[in-house]
Amino acid sequence: MAGTPRVRSDAARNRDALLCTAARMVAEEGASAVTMDRLAAEACVGKGTIFRRFGNRAGLMAAVLDGSEAEFQARVMRGEPPLGPGAPPYERLIAFGVARFQESVQRIDLLEAAGGGRSHAAYSFGLLHVRHLLAELGVEGDLPLLAAAVLAPLEVPLLRAQLEVQHLPLERLTAAWIDVASRVVGVSPTR
Amino acid sequence: MAGTPRVRSDAARNRDALLCTAARMVAEEGASAVTMDRLAAEACVGKGTIFRRFGNRAGLMAAVLDGSEAEFQARVMRGEPPLGPGAPPYERLIAFGVARFQESVQRIDLLEAAGGGRSHAAYSFGLLHVRHLLAELGVEGDLPLLAAAVLAPLEVPLLRAQLEVQHLPLERLTAAWIDVASRVVGVSPTR
Repeated sequence: MAGTPRVRSDAARNRDALLCTAARMVAEEGASAVTMDRLAAEACVGKGTIFRRFGNRAGLMAAVLDGSEAEFQARVMRGEPPLGPGAPPYERLIAFGVARFQESVQRIDLLEAAGGGRSHAAYSFGLLHVRHLLAELGVEGDLPLLAAAVLAPLEVPLLRAQLEVQHLPLERLTAAWIDVASRVVGVSPTR
Repeated sequence: MAGTPRVRSDAARNRDALLCTAARMVAEEGASAVTMDRLAAEACVGKGTIFRRFGNRAGLMAAVLDGSEAEFQARVMRGEPPLGPGAPPYERLIAFGVARFQESVQRIDLLEAAGGGRSHAAYSFGLLHVRHLLAELGVEGDLPLLAAAVLAPLEVPLLRAQLEVQHLPLERLTAAWIDVASRVVGVSPTR
């Protein structure tokens, strides 16, 4: 069987099926439910196949996370306003923060299982997007670092401490973030 | 020898000597130079003693870090202004951020070796201090979360990425942080 085109496309299909099954298990039961044993059983493949494809559990989780990050980025770049294009930049900025909070909370155990936070690529995407919005808003200053400061309260380790150690409600975190972002941007949050 | 008061005080003295030696090695050569073997040789104790006192290398690093955090907190609470008491709250806030940046950069490999960031106690100390300064400044809003947002750019994982991946100079990070803190506080950074 080895060496034929058929095998390669089977491998790709296998990988997609494994990722789809893993993402479904995460959505239904949380990341902690996804063990290599359970995934092998649910996807009807050998455990060796999963290890060959993803290296280890953190690698599998990172691949599941990449898929969900791609969906998030598509919503920002091509989705409905105010998160997507078409809304004024202040509204897009607030929509981005609110959506990142929601997405982070939904995936917090997946982010943890994948190594403790967002990938560098996912972080860089947010940084570039917020930097462009600050420029559109006419904010003056060191825009890449102002963007990093605006995004810093959305980082996973801090968010995790606030949600799981301090037990702060997401609504309060979101409201305070909107206040901070508005102060940095110089726009009243009530508009 | 066991069971006498003398043994207990020897144990405490041993622990202090080990911490002092480890802190000196970190200061002179960086955290990566401190292996259990080298510490045992430098401090003239058996490696088993070090493991009994600190569990593992991360535990040893966390203990060294606790000592340096205690010094930092003493400078904030009882040291010279503007970091210590006596300066106006805006100046104390800026001095705190600048000092945290410097302290984090000096200890970044120690923070990494101790588990990737500041202890919860060290973080909470900064949060409470900044929150009090915001209140003194008459800032309105959700002060605990505004304080968390002001501190977020000083967190070790973000700082590490900015210094070691993006290669941004510390002066630029500090200047941008002062700009952000001033915007949140509502004070012009030029005063």
